[in-house]
Amino acid sequence: MVELKENLDILSAWSILEERFHPLNELEEVDLLALEGYPPIKLGVDVLSRRNLPQYPASAVDGFAVKATDTVNSSPRTPAQIFPGSYCWVNTGGGVDRSFDSVVMIEDTLMEGDTLLVTRTITRGENIRPEGEDITKGQVIARRGDCLDAFLIPLLIASGNSRVSVQRLPRSVFIPTGDEIITAEEWVREDDKTWDKVPETNSFMLRRLFHDWGFPLEIHDLVRDDEALIADAVSRALRDHDFVIIGAGTAKGKRDHSADVIGKLSEPLFRGIRMKPGRPVIVGSSGNRPLVALPGFPMSALVTCWSIIHPLLRRLNGESPAVDLEKAVGSVETLKTSLLMHHSSSQGVMEWLRVKCGDIGGTIYSWPLASGASSTFSTSDADGFALIGSSVLEMPKGSEITVWTKRKMELEKRPVYQGSNDPAIDRIVSFMRERGGDLAVRSVGSLGGLSALARGEGHVASCHLLDPETGVYNDTFISRLDKARSWRRFKLFKREQGFLVRKGNPERISSVRDLADKGSIFVNRQPGAGTRVLFDHLLKEAGIQPGSIVGYDNIAITHFEAAARVSGGSAAATLGIRAAAKAFDTDFIPVTEEDFELVIPEEFISHPGIEILMETLNDDRWRREVDSLGGYRWAF
Amino acid sequence: MVELKENLDILSAWSILEERFHPLNELEEVDLLALEGYPPIKLGVDVLSRRNLPQYPASAVDGFAVKATDTVNSSPRTPAQIFPGSYCWVNTGGGVDRSFDSVVMIEDTLMEGDTLLVTRTITRGENIRPEGEDITKGQVIARRGDCLDAFLIPLLIASGNSRVSVQRLPRSVFIPTGDEIITAEEWVREDDKTWDKVPETNSFMLRRLFHDWGFPLEIHDLVRDDEALIADAVSRALRDHDFVIIGAGTAKGKRDHSADVIGKLSEPLFRGIRMKPGRPVIVGSSGNRPLVALPGFPMSALVTCWSIIHPLLRRLNGESPAVDLEKAVGSVETLKTSLLMHHSSSQGVMEWLRVKCGDIGGTIYSWPLASGASSTFSTSDADGFALIGSSVLEMPKGSEITVWTKRKMELEKRPVYQGSNDPAIDRIVSFMRERGGDLAVRSVGSLGGLSALARGEGHVASCHLLDPETGVYNDTFISRLDKARSWRRFKLFKREQGFLVRKGNPERISSVRDLADKGSIFVNRQPGAGTRVLFDHLLKEAGIQPGSIVGYDNIAITHFEAAARVSGGSAAATLGIRAAAKAFDTDFIPVTEEDFELVIPEEFISHPGIEILMETLNDDRWRREVDSLGGYRWAF
Repeated sequence: MVELKENLDILSAWSILEERFHPLNELEEVDLLALEGYPPIKLGVDVLSRRNLPQYPASAVDGFAVKATDTVNSSPRTPAQIFPGSYCWVNTGGGVDRSFDSVVMIEDTLMEGDTLLVTRTITRGENIRPEGEDITKGQVIARRGDCLDAFLIPLLIASGNSRVSVQRLPRSVFIPTGDEIITAEEWVREDDKTWDKVPETNSFMLRRLFHDWGFPLEIHDLVRDDEALIADAVSRALRDHDFVIIGAGTAKGKRDHSADVIGKLSEPLFRGIRMKPGRPVIVGSSGNRPLVALPGFPMSALVTCWSIIHPLLRRLNGESPAVDLEKAVGSVETLKTSLLMHHSSSQGVMEWLRVKCGDIGGTIYSWPLASGASSTFSTSDADGFALIGSSVLEMPKGSEITVWTKRKMELEKRPVYQGSNDPAIDRIVSFMRERGGDLAVRSVGSLGGLSALARGEGHVASCHLLDPETGVYNDTFISRLDKARSWRRFKLFKREQGFLVRKGNPERISSVRDLADKGSIFVNRQPGAGTRVLFDHLLKEAGIQPGSIVGYDNIAITHFEAAARVSGGSAAATLGIRAAAKAFDTDFIPVTEEDFELVIPEEFISHPGIEILMETLNDDRWRREVDSLGGYRWAF
Repeated sequence: MVELKENLDILSAWSILEERFHPLNELEEVDLLALEGYPPIKLGVDVLSRRNLPQYPASAVDGFAVKATDTVNSSPRTPAQIFPGSYCWVNTGGGVDRSFDSVVMIEDTLMEGDTLLVTRTITRGENIRPEGEDITKGQVIARRGDCLDAFLIPLLIASGNSRVSVQRLPRSVFIPTGDEIITAEEWVREDDKTWDKVPETNSFMLRRLFHDWGFPLEIHDLVRDDEALIADAVSRALRDHDFVIIGAGTAKGKRDHSADVIGKLSEPLFRGIRMKPGRPVIVGSSGNRPLVALPGFPMSALVTCWSIIHPLLRRLNGESPAVDLEKAVGSVETLKTSLLMHHSSSQGVMEWLRVKCGDIGGTIYSWPLASGASSTFSTSDADGFALIGSSVLEMPKGSEITVWTKRKMELEKRPVYQGSNDPAIDRIVSFMRERGGDLAVRSVGSLGGLSALARGEGHVASCHLLDPETGVYNDTFISRLDKARSWRRFKLFKREQGFLVRKGNPERISSVRDLADKGSIFVNRQPGAGTRVLFDHLLKEAGIQPGSIVGYDNIAITHFEAAARVSGGSAAATLGIRAAAKAFDTDFIPVTEEDFELVIPEEFISHPGIEILMETLNDDRWRREVDSLGGYRWAF
């Protein structure tokens, strides 16, 4: 294997791409009458009109073609008389025979038998659009580089140029590889019988990105992790494509063949860029044809598409500048935002963040979604993306961060919710959207939500926090909030909490004592979660040390995540709400019913988005949906 | 026929549309695996994941699955020994059997025979991504209204949702009508034998606009000007479409049936909006299905698409606000510009202008292209569009005018050329673009160009102006420019001027005397054109009064336009350059050879675009192209 340059910074990578690859500059003919899908095609040559437009002297009105000299001194009182043969009816746009030189509008005429009376003196050429008025034969009507848009296409056709020479777009192919990959078709068909397999979804992301960028893309069949098979597919692809992208195999394991294939079939240019995620990209050149191995993890693949694939496509297509990250990302809006909480970035590498945004008190804040390169949800859930420079290490709260947004947002109607994870809240968002609102939900736990509110980092918090001293929910915790400010409380519903255990309760767990005695594996919730506060209370009540619980440090962030592990068999039990037990079909041993409430600082009560939230809390359709989740009671 | 509201202002029209039409709110299922073309489809319902992702506890590294308790107190010096059966190799992303609880990276192990040595103490859960870490079954992963983008599509597939319920897009159909219309196929096939016919190109404009807006559109076959045929086509179209657009027939002539058809098949809402062009649109409603008759002239059709069709599509599709003109126009950039010269707008109607832009001395100017509703060239040639309010009448030079541009422009490299019309100049633009420059060309004649320069309205002028007193070209006229400023002159080439007459010179014209004596029809050029100055000089020399020339007031703006009329038979002769005679295959009677030169104010000599122009003047490829036009001589 040939040695590659490793771990370049992105600027060095770009200058290598710029230096090594050149615009295709190839022409091909397209038939405008048969054009489908309208990629952003550019003319390859200047185009001359083949026609005069109009092709003939055309009438600008409905009326009679006449000779102007026949109308001299006409007026309503002394109309000119014109006899048959010396006038001719003509429609708007119709041709005016060259024996006439002007057209009189029907409004300026009368008929007397078959004699035309003209009541106005007409000047030569009046109401005639002479041939070539719009365009003339031989005229340059469009130039090399002009885009075939809604204005140019009709003009080209009208000028008699239905087949035009255009700049050929680069032909790209994506070859997904991997033994662990199954096709999307298999994945959705096989349902849950897919242990050890992941679906091939990167091709769907690439297809859509290429579509949005305006470039064609072919998808190759999936190839197994076999160097010979991959090399064969790549070398055949190189024959009739300008750009070959190999999916995955970019790591250095036994099953990773991309580097070897690129080393054998092309001149390797570099391996790895100092970017997180997206690091393990490999790039080679086979003449002017780039060969790129795309990391397999979805977010790594995505940022590599933005930062390597898109610049290469633009370079091959002769676009300047080749690098236009904002366009690659498809940014709808560029927002200058303020970081809502401290973020530690990695030293020496650029970092892509998936962020959500919110406008709190007139400042637009953003916060990164905590998630790795393999996460697909946070990529879709994000409002936008931010690229953090490689020299940035610690970013304190309030740091400026530029966000490229994916969608247009009405932030003034989208309050920021910080607090307890709850499926009913997840369901309310669409009902708020129906009313023109929205909700940015951050699941940080009940204690986390109240602290966030105290720090001014949200419009609404939620909590279900038991004070064991009083046996009363929430009061104690909310009363600790700054007394100088005013806090509005809205009791929403009661939720059943209990132990989730596998169907049939094979380990016979019904208390914390059982957990400790049997050494069953537990899944806990993160510090600050109301459910963890409850679990700790149960332990204390039973006199059990946390260290006696196997898996006390196994953390899940949501009820559903904890239930998934119990249901899947990784854990024996968790503490959570009945709705999670219902969704995952686990047994549920009830422990308590808790008060779930919202807390809103007084100053946000008239926030347009909070008003929409308040209104939506009474939406019967939402309430019925919540009822169907199980374990909720509208007690307030 | 039912009476329609006539000539509404656009705001009233929009409020009628808003009141009468409602979002479709219909769902349909799409198969994400088979999605083609990617219109901007929105989810119709909230989507819950059908899977946990990962589906199983997955290894985050290449290594060995082990039990954490088997590694207690391991270190490089005291490695734990793990025997076959108690460990298992696992690839990154691979499933970790539930008999293990953690994964040790290969880097932290050694093999001793078939015994695994672990050199680090591993904690429970280390290097394992638990099932559901990314998303869990039952989780809301996308919401009603979310767009099927590059981020959501892979997520939906991975979550097991390959068929999703989406908001059905409105189904539209365009029915072109008209006896004078022929299909684009016929038009390009029939070449010049198309007297009295115009090509059906509006469907191509609509197809592309709908594509850019993200809506599907069907094109109906052309229908003749027959009320019964049109009514039949429309009523059949109404059966399976949400939106029917009739092409043309919007005037009040005998052949215009759209108003009658709309009156019979729907409830007519209004006819005519106070907008220029675009006035004669007709709108009716058949239930929630709009029926719109689109004016036939291309520019009228275009602005009606922007101002009526697009808002209707957005309304039916539930988008808010329904009216988004900037989006309809497809504006790339919104420029605040200053009007380069006085413009008189029409009172009481809004007016759409096609404009070109230029940056002169740091101010961005724009000027309207003089052209009517039937012009296709200026629509394509324009840099952008501006909508002038109905209360605006006179707009003096310097008035602010907001332009929605069609393309990204580097105005600092695009000087403004004002002056003589010349085909060689038309051909230089592409060669300047190759060098990163461009040229905004305004053909205002030689005198017009010099005055524009004097007024500070351009970077470069061109002229070919004979002073009959001296017999010398240009000197006299350029010397009249402000002496306080410095003017640089560049003699470009010599051009042959002469009479263009029909092939074979049937009227035997070889002088102005012949024109006067024979009463042959002449085509003149506009006041200020160098060619007109020459013609006036010839008349004066021969002692002929302009009034003795038939067609002295027939004006063409370019050499080619004048030649087209001679070639087409509307006129017998014009005065023009040999290149025009060659392009139109007319006879050419040489009169003189003139000096064509550029004038550039000293302060613009170092303008980046002027530097590119100067460089390009020496481009051999351009010079060869000019040579092939005929009548040019590189004499300087």
